[in-house]
Amino acid sequence: MAPTSASPAPPPLQEGALRIVALGGIGEVGRNMTVFEYNGRLLLVDCGVLFPEDDAPGVDLILPDFGPIENRLDEIDAVVLTHGHEDHIGALPFLLRLRSDIPVVGSKFTLALLSAKCQEHRLSPQLVEVAEGQRSEHGAFDLEFFAVNHSIPDALAVAIRTPAGTVLHTGDIKLDQLPLDGRLTDLAGFARMGAEGVDLFLADSTNAEVPGYVTPEREIGPVLDSVIGRATQRVIVACFASHVHRVQQVLDVAEAYGRKVCLVGRSMVRNMGIAAEQGILRVPEGLLVNLEEALGMPAESVVFVSTGSQGEPLSALSRMARGEHKQIKIQQGDTVILASSMIPGNETAVFGVVNGLVRLGAEVVHQGSAKVHVSGHASAGELLYLYNAVRPSNVMPLHGEWRHLKANADLATLTGVPSDRVVIAEDGVVVDLIDGIASIAGRVEVGHVYVDGLSVGDVGESTLSDRLVLGEGGFISITVAVDATTGRAVSPPTVSGRGFSDDPKALDEVSPLVEMELSRTESEGITDTHRIAQAVRRTVGKWVADTYRRKPMIVPNVLPVDS
Amino acid sequence: MAPTSASPAPPPLQEGALRIVALGGIGEVGRNMTVFEYNGRLLLVDCGVLFPEDDAPGVDLILPDFGPIENRLDEIDAVVLTHGHEDHIGALPFLLRLRSDIPVVGSKFTLALLSAKCQEHRLSPQLVEVAEGQRSEHGAFDLEFFAVNHSIPDALAVAIRTPAGTVLHTGDIKLDQLPLDGRLTDLAGFARMGAEGVDLFLADSTNAEVPGYVTPEREIGPVLDSVIGRATQRVIVACFASHVHRVQQVLDVAEAYGRKVCLVGRSMVRNMGIAAEQGILRVPEGLLVNLEEALGMPAESVVFVSTGSQGEPLSALSRMARGEHKQIKIQQGDTVILASSMIPGNETAVFGVVNGLVRLGAEVVHQGSAKVHVSGHASAGELLYLYNAVRPSNVMPLHGEWRHLKANADLATLTGVPSDRVVIAEDGVVVDLIDGIASIAGRVEVGHVYVDGLSVGDVGESTLSDRLVLGEGGFISITVAVDATTGRAVSPPTVSGRGFSDDPKALDEVSPLVEMELSRTESEGITDTHRIAQAVRRTVGKWVADTYRRKPMIVPNVLPVDS
Repeated sequence: MAPTSASPAPPPLQEGALRIVALGGIGEVGRNMTVFEYNGRLLLVDCGVLFPEDDAPGVDLILPDFGPIENRLDEIDAVVLTHGHEDHIGALPFLLRLRSDIPVVGSKFTLALLSAKCQEHRLSPQLVEVAEGQRSEHGAFDLEFFAVNHSIPDALAVAIRTPAGTVLHTGDIKLDQLPLDGRLTDLAGFARMGAEGVDLFLADSTNAEVPGYVTPEREIGPVLDSVIGRATQRVIVACFASHVHRVQQVLDVAEAYGRKVCLVGRSMVRNMGIAAEQGILRVPEGLLVNLEEALGMPAESVVFVSTGSQGEPLSALSRMARGEHKQIKIQQGDTVILASSMIPGNETAVFGVVNGLVRLGAEVVHQGSAKVHVSGHASAGELLYLYNAVRPSNVMPLHGEWRHLKANADLATLTGVPSDRVVIAEDGVVVDLIDGIASIAGRVEVGHVYVDGLSVGDVGESTLSDRLVLGEGGFISITVAVDATTGRAVSPPTVSGRGFSDDPKALDEVSPLVEMELSRTESEGITDTHRIAQAVRRTVGKWVADTYRRKPMIVPNVLPVDS
Repeated sequence: MAPTSASPAPPPLQEGALRIVALGGIGEVGRNMTVFEYNGRLLLVDCGVLFPEDDAPGVDLILPDFGPIENRLDEIDAVVLTHGHEDHIGALPFLLRLRSDIPVVGSKFTLALLSAKCQEHRLSPQLVEVAEGQRSEHGAFDLEFFAVNHSIPDALAVAIRTPAGTVLHTGDIKLDQLPLDGRLTDLAGFARMGAEGVDLFLADSTNAEVPGYVTPEREIGPVLDSVIGRATQRVIVACFASHVHRVQQVLDVAEAYGRKVCLVGRSMVRNMGIAAEQGILRVPEGLLVNLEEALGMPAESVVFVSTGSQGEPLSALSRMARGEHKQIKIQQGDTVILASSMIPGNETAVFGVVNGLVRLGAEVVHQGSAKVHVSGHASAGELLYLYNAVRPSNVMPLHGEWRHLKANADLATLTGVPSDRVVIAEDGVVVDLIDGIASIAGRVEVGHVYVDGLSVGDVGESTLSDRLVLGEGGFISITVAVDATTGRAVSPPTVSGRGFSDDPKALDEVSPLVEMELSRTESEGITDTHRIAQAVRRTVGKWVADTYRRKPMIVPNVLPVDS
């Protein structure tokens, strides 16, 4: 069932077969991107970013590895975007830089978010707008779209019909049976596809470990109502900038209590503007006020809706929690609602914000203390509905770490999919669908592509491993000038440490040690600066390990000077 | 209710009054230590460590700040240890290094764990063993001890009677009404103290935000029974090395299924040895086997009990998850149970271990998927029992971040404690109990004392802030030798980056830039190496910000050479 890391390079794709490779999103949560290949042509589904964790310090974004397709860009018939979240569209501008005229297929709201993003990158993509119920042909790939309920409006699942068989790809999905916008996940459509025959089903694994069913989004409304209803001072609601239905519920409650609403944060203002324009967000006349107006109003008359629910240090909410926000100062009695999940890894940052707000006198309501968030991803119970509707011949779990993929695989087999037809394929694992049977054909190399500041790809594993060492122990640099001919030190060594110690005398013993070592190298006739540097590194490294039991980076600079 | 950071230094302690200052443990979870002062004498309760998070990279431990008492060591009458967890005893060896003959008061099991720790530090503390129901006088402090239920055996609460009033300190506490060892938290004793009059009640805040009651520990037994009962291969249970009752339940279930048990990890073996010796852990004859014996047995005949439940990278469990453990190789069908909480901040590491284990074919059972852990700290419902039993005049929430302290304070006021008698005092905030009223008298400075390798205190905020910069962006060093008299560069600059880029050409533009800048400084007659270094730093910093939009540390080394 599981690929081994020793899987070989895949054979050439057999004629009449379909090949599937994820360049991101399997074995991790984020940078979703799946490549389908038939008869020498490629179809991409999603092209998202991953937000880095502790193991990639200083990195802004992680992209899927385009390596396996970068020499085949002209063979791409289209890229389909299932919805507008960053982990599904965020990397597309980087792909469009390589070939700008790839047709981009998606729903109206998804494409509007993508366009806004592309404008920042000065790109004008070729957009193909589709909607649920529609079909769209791109080369060998005959696509059909299905409405899907998720934590962003206008999400789609996509069926991909090819001569090699039919694939159904859920994108991110849940099955809220009372969605706020009435737009249900099209289970009937999935069943129809099932009746037609789905050879391979790719399904969202994010919540496969969670038993039962996701609470309907609309149950958050009464909780917001009760919290905002009893608030006597300002209310600040933090949530994701793309969660239109969550914001809708806040607007509705604010209106009911005669409060105005002020949207805070560039992405929040932009996305809600798009949603309002498309009629997805209903904004009552005169409800919205700008920040200046809001600050001039009595505390009990306004609700701020802000980003920053993940504790991002530069966000408006984090600055409020530190008392550093220029305009919005938290007062005793203010209410702050974190109407969002806590993405694993962000707990410390989020609770840091909560502590700061509580310390300043705010009452903070969060997922742990009230039902102010529900997930956007199907729990195990909902996934069973999907498997039973689709009755797929083969299954490939998508979107998730290993524990999620395995849990999803187990659900598939529970509904009757033979376990040898459930393929857990990490990023880069090549799955071929041949004669109705999906199996692992090999593996292509996919790495992590890091975006750090303006450049893509120049920060790699070696740089990150240096950052980890430096971040843990700092460095000690030793600079010496030596006579290029004799190798004799021409000045005493300069020793300095950064990130090593606050004690100015901590490194006092290093200089004499290095001088001794330099006498030794000189006496042995060593003039090669690399060898001298190596000797210095060894001497200082041993000293610091013995003296401090620490491992700073040792950085010798040996400068040859002409005598 | 809350102290401001502008609180002034406290006035001298009024005669007949009691002063309370936490040197750690309030406003954070860990390094618990509270100082009581009466008539020039001091009593300490607990002396624990805090395990560092992302904001203290490379640090091994964080100690309470002994600063406010380090000139008053001779005035300490005793240190009371409420129980044997690291966050209550871990810093004591560092205090005993300053004065080795401070009487250390605690229960039998607590003192045994402390002794083991002190042996590693080559210290022989003066131990005073006490038990619930006993009293013990230390100078002006008349102590009485109460049985307390927690996630480690033999925990105590302590009442401190002084002429200024009576304090009751819970330590870590919960109120399991069906404890495995039958040793209930002595609520009746607390009520008796309440009847006598408790002037100040210091209560554990850790779970004050959590509504309801902690599930009894014994409900984990049947879950372990069901998981281990259906396991057909090896079983590995990971839990804290001090959680004797959890291990007892594993031993019982293992015995029931005819499996032998192998304890893995130095602290696990040591602590369970102590517990068995003291009759706290019941080990059936012949149940335990050593690692070598365990490896020779059929997979279905053994349970491993291991540390590493927090994803510690060097732990046995982490090494198994990476396939790097020398002896224990995870096989398809093995079962791993994480019978512990996930300490906030450790989620990514723990799930990393889970993913690794699942990938190797193990079934992993954790807190998220089954009831294999219950907390050691009272939930809100239990805290209400405590407040109602004790009916304190004043309350000071202990052990927790701001959100926990505030939730605990709210519970106290709900039971009728006037809100102006509930004092939220962070570390360093000085609370005086005068004529039965507790209030904030000022603040003493307490910082974080970091242990990194062998030395204590030399790593401070400046070093940590350098580590954070280096960890995010690495550094660029520029080394030049200049003529000491003229300031002229005598060799081309040597430029190197670490943690900056994998691209060997990334810094090619720096050298010519620096040469230009050095010509400028030379032409302006600048010979001071600090000023030259500053000019180089400015030039390279601007270049890297413009070119890469990154902020590595810029490290110029300007070496004066005599011409």
